[in-house]
Amino acid sequence: MATIKRIALLTSGGDAPGMNAAIRAVVLTAAACRIEVIGFEHGYIGLLEQEYRTLLPQHVHNIIQRGGTILKSARCPALQTPEGPKLAADNLQQLNIDALIVIGGDGSFRGALEIARYYDGQIIGVPGTIDNDVDGTTNTIGYATAIDTALDAIDKIRDTADAFERIFLVELMGRHSGYISLAAGIAGGAEQIICPEFSQITPKDLRQITTPIQHAQLLMGKASYIIVVAENSYPGGTTALAEALTKAIGIECRACILGHIQRGGSPVGADRILATKLGAYAVEALQQGAHLQMAGEVHGEVTLYPLAKTGDRTKAIDPYLVRWQQQVGSY
Amino acid sequence: MATIKRIALLTSGGDAPGMNAAIRAVVLTAAACRIEVIGFEHGYIGLLEQEYRTLLPQHVHNIIQRGGTILKSARCPALQTPEGPKLAADNLQQLNIDALIVIGGDGSFRGALEIARYYDGQIIGVPGTIDNDVDGTTNTIGYATAIDTALDAIDKIRDTADAFERIFLVELMGRHSGYISLAAGIAGGAEQIICPEFSQITPKDLRQITTPIQHAQLLMGKASYIIVVAENSYPGGTTALAEALTKAIGIECRACILGHIQRGGSPVGADRILATKLGAYAVEALQQGAHLQMAGEVHGEVTLYPLAKTGDRTKAIDPYLVRWQQQVGSY
Amino acid sequence: MATIKRIALLTSGGDAPGMNAAIRAVVLTAAACRIEVIGFEHGYIGLLEQEYRTLLPQHVHNIIQRGGTILKSARCPALQTPEGPKLAADNLQQLNIDALIVIGGDGSFRGALEIARYYDGQIIGVPGTIDNDVDGTTNTIGYATAIDTALDAIDKIRDTADAFERIFLVELMGRHSGYISLAAGIAGGAEQIICPEFSQITPKDLRQITTPIQHAQLLMGKASYIIVVAENSYPGGTTALAEALTKAIGIECRACILGHIQRGGSPVGADRILATKLGAYAVEALQQGAHLQMAGEVHGEVTLYPLAKTGDRTKAIDPYLVRWQQQVGSY
Amino acid sequence: MATIKRIALLTSGGDAPGMNAAIRAVVLTAAACRIEVIGFEHGYIGLLEQEYRTLLPQHVHNIIQRGGTILKSARCPALQTPEGPKLAADNLQQLNIDALIVIGGDGSFRGALEIARYYDGQIIGVPGTIDNDVDGTTNTIGYATAIDTALDAIDKIRDTADAFERIFLVELMGRHSGYISLAAGIAGGAEQIICPEFSQITPKDLRQITTPIQHAQLLMGKASYIIVVAENSYPGGTTALAEALTKAIGIECRACILGHIQRGGSPVGADRILATKLGAYAVEALQQGAHLQMAGEVHGEVTLYPLAKTGDRTKAIDPYLVRWQQQVGSY
Repeated sequence: MATIKRIALLTSGGDAPGMNAAIRAVVLTAAACRIEVIGFEHGYIGLLEQEYRTLLPQHVHNIIQRGGTILKSARCPALQTPEGPKLAADNLQQLNIDALIVIGGDGSFRGALEIARYYDGQIIGVPGTIDNDVDGTTNTIGYATAIDTALDAIDKIRDTADAFERIFLVELMGRHSGYISLAAGIAGGAEQIICPEFSQITPKDLRQITTPIQHAQLLMGKASYIIVVAENSYPGGTTALAEALTKAIGIECRACILGHIQRGGSPVGADRILATKLGAYAVEALQQGAHLQMAGEVHGEVTLYPLAKTGDRTKAIDPYLVRWQQQVGSY
Repeated sequence: MATIKRIALLTSGGDAPGMNAAIRAVVLTAAACRIEVIGFEHGYIGLLEQEYRTLLPQHVHNIIQRGGTILKSARCPALQTPEGPKLAADNLQQLNIDALIVIGGDGSFRGALEIARYYDGQIIGVPGTIDNDVDGTTNTIGYATAIDTALDAIDKIRDTADAFERIFLVELMGRHSGYISLAAGIAGGAEQIICPEFSQITPKDLRQITTPIQHAQLLMGKASYIIVVAENSYPGGTTALAEALTKAIGIECRACILGHIQRGGSPVGADRILATKLGAYAVEALQQGAHLQMAGEVHGEVTLYPLAKTGDRTKAIDPYLVRWQQQVGSY
Repeated sequence: MATIKRIALLTSGGDAPGMNAAIRAVVLTAAACRIEVIGFEHGYIGLLEQEYRTLLPQHVHNIIQRGGTILKSARCPALQTPEGPKLAADNLQQLNIDALIVIGGDGSFRGALEIARYYDGQIIGVPGTIDNDVDGTTNTIGYATAIDTALDAIDKIRDTADAFERIFLVELMGRHSGYISLAAGIAGGAEQIICPEFSQITPKDLRQITTPIQHAQLLMGKASYIIVVAENSYPGGTTALAEALTKAIGIECRACILGHIQRGGSPVGADRILATKLGAYAVEALQQGAHLQMAGEVHGEVTLYPLAKTGDRTKAIDPYLVRWQQQVGSY
Repeated sequence: MATIKRIALLTSGGDAPGMNAAIRAVVLTAAACRIEVIGFEHGYIGLLEQEYRTLLPQHVHNIIQRGGTILKSARCPALQTPEGPKLAADNLQQLNIDALIVIGGDGSFRGALEIARYYDGQIIGVPGTIDNDVDGTTNTIGYATAIDTALDAIDKIRDTADAFERIFLVELMGRHSGYISLAAGIAGGAEQIICPEFSQITPKDLRQITTPIQHAQLLMGKASYIIVVAENSYPGGTTALAEALTKAIGIECRACILGHIQRGGSPVGADRILATKLGAYAVEALQQGAHLQMAGEVHGEVTLYPLAKTGDRTKAIDPYLVRWQQQVGSY
């Protein structure tokens, strides 16, 4: 096992709060181990176009609390061309980079696996995405902050919903998973939560949504009623769903699409701590020879998980909360 | 001038952060003056349907920091029927109410003026709306909080816009005025601000938006670029505008519609203080005989303004900031 | 095993954000199971003095986001008198209460164990304290929020420390444990963290603190430097420590005692979710016969733990972070 | 009147949220007018020690939302030596600086006046201090944010005070003025506000504080009770006052000293807008020949005020709120 002297680092895919904290941890840990760190900018684009800079401890001072990523991020279609991965590997080789750390989601990890086919060095992933849809780690970096951002919005909408005794649909992010929606829905006291894991909603069968609304109106009288909806849960989107519900029950239902504010913001403590642990552990693991692994945290302990399996979607939303919500949520 | 013994209070129209602080100030001030306070629920609906309760100091303890309104709010089409205002006046008379305080926007004040045609008591308005589109007061209750809520969203979107060097359009509320958009746009460092007061944007002439974007891209290279758009600024809405711009400049422009989160939330200090002053002053002014006036604050001092003129729209967004933004904003 | 028909609930000891979310979960879950809920006010005082009220779903609407506890809390010296526990048990018996749920820390659980000596019903605890010093659960309710409150303060102090390149000591709560200090210190990028678990600091040996400061000044030049100090870490308190350090290194060190703001505030998502799970699980566990147990969460799953062992302090702060901080923290 | 080609800028005294927004506005406005900007670091120290850098628009991108000051701040005893002001003026002259902009409080402005005795160029001040104790402007930059920071703490303490029905004293900053205390006290619904402008409190006469407490306890029963105390209001500080009150009324009174967190944090909208206006106006005013003036905002409009008079303390806290608090506050 060769000694690691020079590490490259990049952030890829959708930005997530805590990416900067992970960058900082990599740089500080590497500095303590006398390893040099090169940061590529704009994700894999910077790797393909040789856009990089050396990262020293002073460059990461006072960034632990910043949203976004100082290395910028991007989607990189060029990596998916036949020549992309080879060019990336050549660039790493040419810069004498012993190991590459990729901070991103499972899509970014797939890119890393392609590069690995041509690259002699080690590759390790650090899970950074608000969607939490990465296997091998209980939480991804950014997920905790996204929950609190969504929650802050739900709390605000609750004020208006309460003042007007109105029905609101709040659409949250999550790509094809309901992690953010379930967590923010439970924490926001949402009367209903609609996410891919629960069941498919079709325009022809809205009764599973309308029945609990009507039941609650009978039981509680008019009151605020909030339905958290994961994106991609309804054909045509949440605005279309709100219109369909309005028609179905004869009471106005308003949609609020939270959108990109869920990606930004100063990371909460949990994300900064997770990012610090995983960034530090990635550097340690590389020194111990780890390759094609993701640095994750399971049961409070750092752990490695095969990069190739991070997109298998064997992880599931909390079954205890799912069951509770369905039994009790609309009381 | 008869002594005031019993006041009625209601909140009407869109809820605004600080309405509860105004309710509290009315109740505490009235208590100190040994005046009884009746609160109607759901705005004018409660007045028409005699849904009310007595408000004592203990009922307003610990509500100064709450968003929404403990009295609920509502739009009330029934008040706009020919019989509505007369019925409202009769109910006030029957409950021996010497004066009515309406917390709301200029639409709510128009309702109060209708009631006044049949009502023997005094009526005073307190300006509560996030839109700030009420004449006779520098700021309305809720406006300062709405700015900071919008700003919080813009700051978060800036993180992502910066990480991806992307163009975002952020749509803010304001009905037909640009107060929130100008203030949050300036405070968020928005590269462009589009609001009704500036100029009309039509699908046929997008150049006034695209030219500064292209200029900035030449000058600064790729960088985050945020355009704050007041609602009702473009036919078809901000999503349509984003699509039109994407087509026009060949770079993806994303829309983010902030929506109802701008109405809720714990009021910021400025709104709580303004609400406290205006609520207290409304009670004082009634005791001094004020009628058909709005309690406002101009140049830091409480003042009265004719209710009938509050919707004249003679107030304007800050010309200094408008000019500065147009000169400098996109540097 | 008798059927549970009536549960009593109280919050005791220092209040913690999320206590209201736990109350809500107990009440909603009980309602779904057709169990009546009685809430005693002011912790054990209300139990001794028969100060209580029935809690229905409508009483817990819209409290999930509130700090504090709607049932009030208190320390109760009367429970520690010889007659206290017997009187408490008699009152429970007399009110036909089948089971008691105590939300609080290990001190409150000791009180519950005393009552159990005389009480025929079941008793279950729910861990609510910001200090996280309760065995049998990874996190206590309130801990996550306290970290973020402390972090918010550290971030703000960092602004000033950075502007002035100054040394600040920030004292955080935790009674005799360093959970909050380690977590907020890591997340805040603190250059040093002083907490009981690390080592004892005495006035005679300040070198373990001053040496890293001087080392950092040599390495980085003047820069902001933040030392997070757990309360009870130094004789005379953190202000005395700041004075001693100022004298020892000849550079001004300022102390900032965060104090009681760490107890309040709207709970973050993690605390609301944990509180919801544990409150719901406490009701379920009682129905399954649980007695003298605490409802906790370990490795993401609800679990029971003997109340008598919750104060054993076998749980420890994260060794990975401790080691990392000592190696790397002051880079 | 000579054309301005080169401006120098520095931030001095206690840092205030919004200083960065003011720096940004100066730089962007100057860029639009083709004026060069030099930033001195560490306040007057950088001016004396020739520590400076050119500030271009890209250097102030994305700083409008940051607390602290990118130019650093400091107290500068060297400026108060007989040689200090002359040396400062020489350095300005030598660098061909046509005008100096000082962002700070009245102490910093006194330093500027000393320099002006030897300097041929123009000098203008921009009021940046959380204390709001500068004449010639309704609000200083940083004041609005400090109110909301203090308020956030008061709201959190209210949660605990309410849960325990306890008396808390919260000490806020303000040097020798009560602006922050009055505003945050009113906005926080404080039962009492103690600040220099109201009356002097001495250990011998605590009755003006204890009488309202006892009155409230009679009227409302036990309840949370918050006393906001401006720093420097009591000999020995607020902790000593809490102890004296505890002794006097026999009920525990706890002190919470908010301290330096009041200086930091991301500026609220009002501060960013004020900073933007005043920074822009300072550049404009210099071009129109302004000298020895402060750029302030009065009645919503930018205005100039003699630097020499900014420390006269003719401005006063809002008499309406003072009177209202004394009449009504403890209901």
